[in-house]
Amino acid sequence: MTARKTNSPTGRARTTGTGVPAVTLDDVRDAAGRLAGVAHRTPVLRSRTLDALVGAEVFLKCENFQRAGAFKFRGAYHALSRLSPEQLARGVAAYSSGNHAQAVALAARELGSHAVIVMPEDTPQSKLDATAGYGAEIVTYDRYTGDRVAIGGRLAEERGLALIPPYEHPHIIAGQGTAALELIEETGPLDALLTPVGGGGLMAGSATAATALVPGIRMIGVEPEAGDDTLRSLAAGHRVAIPVPRTIADGQAAETPGELTFAINQKLLEAIVLVSDDDIRAAMKLAFERLKIVTEPSGATALAALLARRIAPLPPRIGVIISGGNIGLDRFIGLMSH
Amino acid sequence: MTARKTNSPTGRARTTGTGVPAVTLDDVRDAAGRLAGVAHRTPVLRSRTLDALVGAEVFLKCENFQRAGAFKFRGAYHALSRLSPEQLARGVAAYSSGNHAQAVALAARELGSHAVIVMPEDTPQSKLDATAGYGAEIVTYDRYTGDRVAIGGRLAEERGLALIPPYEHPHIIAGQGTAALELIEETGPLDALLTPVGGGGLMAGSATAATALVPGIRMIGVEPEAGDDTLRSLAAGHRVAIPVPRTIADGQAAETPGELTFAINQKLLEAIVLVSDDDIRAAMKLAFERLKIVTEPSGATALAALLARRIAPLPPRIGVIISGGNIGLDRFIGLMSH
Repeated sequence: MTARKTNSPTGRARTTGTGVPAVTLDDVRDAAGRLAGVAHRTPVLRSRTLDALVGAEVFLKCENFQRAGAFKFRGAYHALSRLSPEQLARGVAAYSSGNHAQAVALAARELGSHAVIVMPEDTPQSKLDATAGYGAEIVTYDRYTGDRVAIGGRLAEERGLALIPPYEHPHIIAGQGTAALELIEETGPLDALLTPVGGGGLMAGSATAATALVPGIRMIGVEPEAGDDTLRSLAAGHRVAIPVPRTIADGQAAETPGELTFAINQKLLEAIVLVSDDDIRAAMKLAFERLKIVTEPSGATALAALLARRIAPLPPRIGVIISGGNIGLDRFIGLMSH
Repeated sequence: MTARKTNSPTGRARTTGTGVPAVTLDDVRDAAGRLAGVAHRTPVLRSRTLDALVGAEVFLKCENFQRAGAFKFRGAYHALSRLSPEQLARGVAAYSSGNHAQAVALAARELGSHAVIVMPEDTPQSKLDATAGYGAEIVTYDRYTGDRVAIGGRLAEERGLALIPPYEHPHIIAGQGTAALELIEETGPLDALLTPVGGGGLMAGSATAATALVPGIRMIGVEPEAGDDTLRSLAAGHRVAIPVPRTIADGQAAETPGELTFAINQKLLEAIVLVSDDDIRAAMKLAFERLKIVTEPSGATALAALLARRIAPLPPRIGVIISGGNIGLDRFIGLMSH
């Protein structure tokens, strides 16, 4: 009846041509049930200083406190939890140099599976260590000559691993949507929800949950100026590709939106707004000094949009997803000393 | 009947000679009632990484997320809330270059009073700005030639201000105890509670609440090595004074414990443990990179004691108070680059 009933994350996800959404609030609720007691129910922080600065009530959903340091664990764990025991026994694979790598590694450990993560050989040692620390096997490749998709695909085929995509699957999207679900359960109706957009999984999941819970909520995505692929795609009415983005927001350096995520976001988003690297640095600094939280650049873009007044007029009650906090002290100091 | 019924924070607080405690759990509960909806109920953070590192279940009560950035707001607001409307109209005074200054300034603004804060003229501009930002009047003095106690006392007398002490009063102690009360309400019984000790107000309030809620809980205070006045006082059996401590933990640079706080702590503490400035730096770094929270040096000492394995054997369930997060980015970078 619908195309959304794919049983394995390796299956190609498709939107339906029948108007049936690929992911629903019920799917997000199901994911929340599977994540209960495994993912952290992250705190929603308030700051009167921040409220006074921006002139609205701001609710910060702090996924930088999520396990493995970012929202990514929600989708990864949910996707793995849907695999058969046989598939979990064979193992899973992912390619990522960022938060998805650690998320899949940790989810695999939690579920007694084995993860193989394909990472560029020049990945910072701290990220290699963190991923290996969760028990994953790491396969490196030369990012200038190798093709991670081909490597991941070959590995998956040869060893019978399930390939866990970073955003392009209903199970991933439903998992990511649980952060917005928790947020709105805690705050009640919000007028707007600001969410960073990279591949679009967090946004698609958030929008699915939030628009079903709060009809009329304004869903606003935030991209770095150099990584405006979703903005351009929305303007064009179809997915477009941009050159590899040069931005400090490495978690949002997508060249084109996902097919499934874009189909959802095209339907549910009000707008995308852009922030500069300087806006992001300023938000990270404010988060540090006033909110006392550590954010990675991609994690701070939604806050940056608010502080840089990219949204006007500002509605009274605004949710903001702080999507991650994985940044080493050295890189943080480097960015702040810029 | 008892000496604890002082009606104004300007009154000299005394312990009773009759064994009646100067502060009780009921006093802490009363304070919690007055703080409800005004102070933040700060989150209790968990980290499986931290648990695995130390080999125990650790519950972090994050007062770095408290209003004005530290637990101090609890005691200050509570003390001010006990003043008469006439006294609030006349105003309050405090001397502090640290978190107590901002706490009293904010509490006064919240209660429609006026605060005069006596601060050394070489106080960092960021702290002067933060205190003035809460609407306080700032009176500076030369810390080498001036006497802040005399200046504060004269101001209070001339202008009829109520002097709000940083720790040496039952209302302050009861207010500070609300953090431990909230923590244990959320976690249930703990085996131990680790708390930074400066003047001893946070420790005395925490111990009052925790030992009444969880008989047998091990109350462990943490001081910087150079600021071991409470450790020495406990060993001596009476309050002793040490030279002005040289430590990065500026919030714990007390030369001698408070009279009232020491009387309580002497009765309720199991032990004081010491941490070095390097231990504190390491804890701040771990808090940043793994817990994604910003701590000031004094705010991280209890965590430092745990990480530096100053407590052995370690009981299974441990509460830790992260007491504050007021640190500018420049100072943080300076400390971390050491």
